[in-house]
Amino acid sequence: MSVTHSSDNSSPDSARSMAPLDLARRLIACPSVTPATGSVFDAMEGMLAPLGFDVLRTIDGDAPDGPVENLLAVRKGPEGSRHFAFAGHLDVVPPGEGWTSEAFEPEIRGDLLYGRGAVDMKGSIACMIAAMAELPTDAGTVSFIITGDEEGPARHGTVALMEHMAARGLTPDLCLVGEPTSVNRLGDMMKIGRRGSVNIFLGVDGVQGHVAYPHLADNPAPKLVRMLAELDALVLDEGTDWFQPSNLEITEIHIGNPAHNVIPTKAEARVSIRFNDLHSGESLSRMVTEVAKKHGGWSKPVISGEPFLTAPGAFSTMLSDAIRAETGIEPELSTSGGTSDARFLKNLCPVIEFGLNNATMHKRDEAVAVADLDVLARIYRRVAEAALAQ
Amino acid sequence: MSVTHSSDNSSPDSARSMAPLDLARRLIACPSVTPATGSVFDAMEGMLAPLGFDVLRTIDGDAPDGPVENLLAVRKGPEGSRHFAFAGHLDVVPPGEGWTSEAFEPEIRGDLLYGRGAVDMKGSIACMIAAMAELPTDAGTVSFIITGDEEGPARHGTVALMEHMAARGLTPDLCLVGEPTSVNRLGDMMKIGRRGSVNIFLGVDGVQGHVAYPHLADNPAPKLVRMLAELDALVLDEGTDWFQPSNLEITEIHIGNPAHNVIPTKAEARVSIRFNDLHSGESLSRMVTEVAKKHGGWSKPVISGEPFLTAPGAFSTMLSDAIRAETGIEPELSTSGGTSDARFLKNLCPVIEFGLNNATMHKRDEAVAVADLDVLARIYRRVAEAALAQ
Ligand SMILES: [Zn+2]
Ligand SMILES: [Zn+2]
Repeated sequence: MSVTHSSDNSSPDSARSMAPLDLARRLIACPSVTPATGSVFDAMEGMLAPLGFDVLRTIDGDAPDGPVENLLAVRKGPEGSRHFAFAGHLDVVPPGEGWTSEAFEPEIRGDLLYGRGAVDMKGSIACMIAAMAELPTDAGTVSFIITGDEEGPARHGTVALMEHMAARGLTPDLCLVGEPTSVNRLGDMMKIGRRGSVNIFLGVDGVQGHVAYPHLADNPAPKLVRMLAELDALVLDEGTDWFQPSNLEITEIHIGNPAHNVIPTKAEARVSIRFNDLHSGESLSRMVTEVAKKHGGWSKPVISGEPFLTAPGAFSTMLSDAIRAETGIEPELSTSGGTSDARFLKNLCPVIEFGLNNATMHKRDEAVAVADLDVLARIYRRVAEAALAQ
Repeated sequence: MSVTHSSDNSSPDSARSMAPLDLARRLIACPSVTPATGSVFDAMEGMLAPLGFDVLRTIDGDAPDGPVENLLAVRKGPEGSRHFAFAGHLDVVPPGEGWTSEAFEPEIRGDLLYGRGAVDMKGSIACMIAAMAELPTDAGTVSFIITGDEEGPARHGTVALMEHMAARGLTPDLCLVGEPTSVNRLGDMMKIGRRGSVNIFLGVDGVQGHVAYPHLADNPAPKLVRMLAELDALVLDEGTDWFQPSNLEITEIHIGNPAHNVIPTKAEARVSIRFNDLHSGESLSRMVTEVAKKHGGWSKPVISGEPFLTAPGAFSTMLSDAIRAETGIEPELSTSGGTSDARFLKNLCPVIEFGLNNATMHKRDEAVAVADLDVLARIYRRVAEAALAQ
């Protein structure tokens, strides 16, 4: 880990526009395919420092999943202030082919600002910064927890940032992650939870032989097939008030035997489970391992994330109020979809995700409605104010 | 197809030894990894022509499974004679690594003659030729049906030879295949039948998607797993008086999906069925196809051979008598093991397989007991005499 500090209020950037559209353009203009490094962090630091944020930049982790660049910015409020955190990522998925304009050259066409990261999630980060530019510095402590590796392995991103916070005694009271959670209109959905995720590698070892002499062999394939059929038939749960039922998918089966008359030596598979808070990665791994053993096989679980739930309450109400005030929309409180860094941040404090429309995220011609940027910045400001005023 | 003829009684080979050991050495000394061509056929032609055989040599078939070299030799008996056929192959499997002496340099060490093909089946062919050297030419019609492609695809070997026979109006009354059928001692087993063999390719087509959104995808893996579980649980039959139960083995399953969070597009598998004469390749293919369809999948059968059975009777008794007379052993009448060219020859006439000990076939240091060669030659002569005398 290497650390540089900045709290330079005289940066030439300080004179520049703090409009969310301008901030979003400046961030998008810095190519930052995951893992993000350098210029996009320089740009963000240049936006935060003039606002009075103490900016810590770190390089965390080693190969193969690092090093990763991260940014932790804190603006302390008066003694005894509450602490509100924004979290997010500056890395983006690769642009891929077929863009109408250059992915890293932000361009407005019609009502939309185009560019990789427009909604996931440089646009949201721009709104957070713009919101904090408007928030009085004595409102309370505000921090930015920003990683360059959320779209990648994510082993040295938010996790490392949380260690840096712990080392500095920083514990937010509430945390808002800027993932693009809106579906059809800005404000129609927030994520109060996410399912957990575990991938489990499975296999059966057998004894090779000739198909004409099966009694001299031990075919692992039927055992694997019965194991997978049993796993696929498991009803993990019926869902909860806030979560859909946990679900197991068989994602890979592999024997790799080219010889038509040979009983194979081994048979392997992989299942992926997305699970709600009735389970843990550990409890599901044990369950699957028991089924695997019953059929003479082995299992090797890789837990990618535990579920989180910030049960509906003060925080979600605060956010709903802010969304309703700015858009007139009553947001759905959802726990659907994949994992996010909230799976780590939940260990700090209650965490909710709310951001722009996700219709174009990870797609070509990713774009955000220009008008949404101002609205989201105002929502973010309202939430921060409410959270700090509690 | 190209054809050359020979019935040269003045060949210099005619003066050479007709002892089975010497004939076996001469055949082994001609490298003939499948598909066999040239010198090994020259050698055999040089042995048969002096014995009064009319030798037809043909090149059959095209790429990819051809061309293949074959040999059909006939010595006609008096008008109205019965016709006894010997069948076999001059090609051998590759020697592989680790031989004590050179695979294609026959060498006697102790009681054994070493060399690739010693038992499978140049040794047996040497015994057939030696036996016919001793058989009076007026005993009846004798033929050799010898292919250079039994260990390979076998599409243009014995099958093509049978077409050449048909074109010449040659139909044996009985046929003996020289495969190494003895297990512990020469004479302890003959094969009066073989199971059929069919490989069936199976698959399910699905719709790719993200594991977090399974309702937007259609995972083919569970369907394939249920299909294979049902196929594996099928009881095809309980066996017959002469055959063990038919058996299905899952030999391959393949999805090939490297992405842990992706529901795959398709899932494929392969099963191999060895079956007795209660089924045909066609009837089993239909049965498997129905199961595949039931689970939303497809199937593509490749029938490699139908079963054959020469029910115990005159022919097997003739052979048992000859074996008992020369060895004192009562041979077991078996239908076990893999397929052989008898699956084609059964369409000509009753066919039985009998030959040397198979302990070293297809292995390194393949070897035959020198003493067995003389015994087998005498057994072959007794069988031919009995068959022609009927
Ligand atoms: Zn994101
Ligand atoms: Zn053979």
